[in-house]
Amino acid sequence: MIESAGTKLRYVASGCVKSGAGDLAARLKAILEGLNEVIAAHGPAEVAVEKVFVNVNPQSTLALGQARGTAICAAVIAGLPVAEYTALQVKQSVVGNGHANKEQVQHMVRQLLALPGNPAPDAADALACAICHAHGKQLGSLSTRGMRMKNGRLV
Amino acid sequence: MIESAGTKLRYVASGCVKSGAGDLAARLKAILEGLNEVIAAHGPAEVAVEKVFVNVNPQSTLALGQARGTAICAAVIAGLPVAEYTALQVKQSVVGNGHANKEQVQHMVRQLLALPGNPAPDAADALACAICHAHGKQLGSLSTRGMRMKNGRLV
Repeated sequence: MIESAGTKLRYVASGCVKSGAGDLAARLKAILEGLNEVIAAHGPAEVAVEKVFVNVNPQSTLALGQARGTAICAAVIAGLPVAEYTALQVKQSVVGNGHANKEQVQHMVRQLLALPGNPAPDAADALACAICHAHGKQLGSLSTRGMRMKNGRLV
Repeated sequence: MIESAGTKLRYVASGCVKSGAGDLAARLKAILEGLNEVIAAHGPAEVAVEKVFVNVNPQSTLALGQARGTAICAAVIAGLPVAEYTALQVKQSVVGNGHANKEQVQHMVRQLLALPGNPAPDAADALACAICHAHGKQLGSLSTRGMRMKNGRLV
């Protein structure tokens, strides 16, 4: 969770919701309730999720889909808009290189949010996705500021 | 949706929730709200879902997982227990043949629920899954009726 005001980014919270043991419904419930709590605690205005890497193992892909669908449900239930970005877009936006490795992502997330240490890899990925979303919105607003439409183009 | 009392089964409702057009969040929202409405209208006590066939196309498997996760979320939000059955189990229970075809499933669902005509294939699959769940509970209760535990076994 980050706060974005103009070009300023501020760290709010990050973490990892564990689905725990139990049957599928119990695990999806844990994800749903974990995210409900985070949303209730911090009241975000928008949600960004990574467009997932599709695993070569079909069972893993199905499980990932179920978890991802559940996460998106948490946003939908709270009435939040959901944006999606590929890992390439996220890395390009945060590191400036779509093929950056995990350490580079952690490092840049730390720098951009002025954190005292590197966030854990999963949390760094989530924060990077949020930063990518904030960057996109800034670029959008910056590039069109003071411009007007002419023949369908911004001039 | 069916009602099960002893060995009696009664048809309550069936249908297909369409996710429509739009982005992923909007489509999952349509599934969630569609199922919320059905649950609110009929107040089921339990939910049964088919353990899905994993498609050879990873993108379809991911999409299926997202939709399935959303459907299970609807049950979880309503506090309903969720049971899962493979297509093989469902067909075995309803038709008596794990490799029955769609027409046989439709025919047996029609017979077992005394419907005036064959339900549509998707609705028939869902009703068959509910019947499988009801059958399992009947067998479970029948087989233990009047029995007692002795050395960890029912006698």
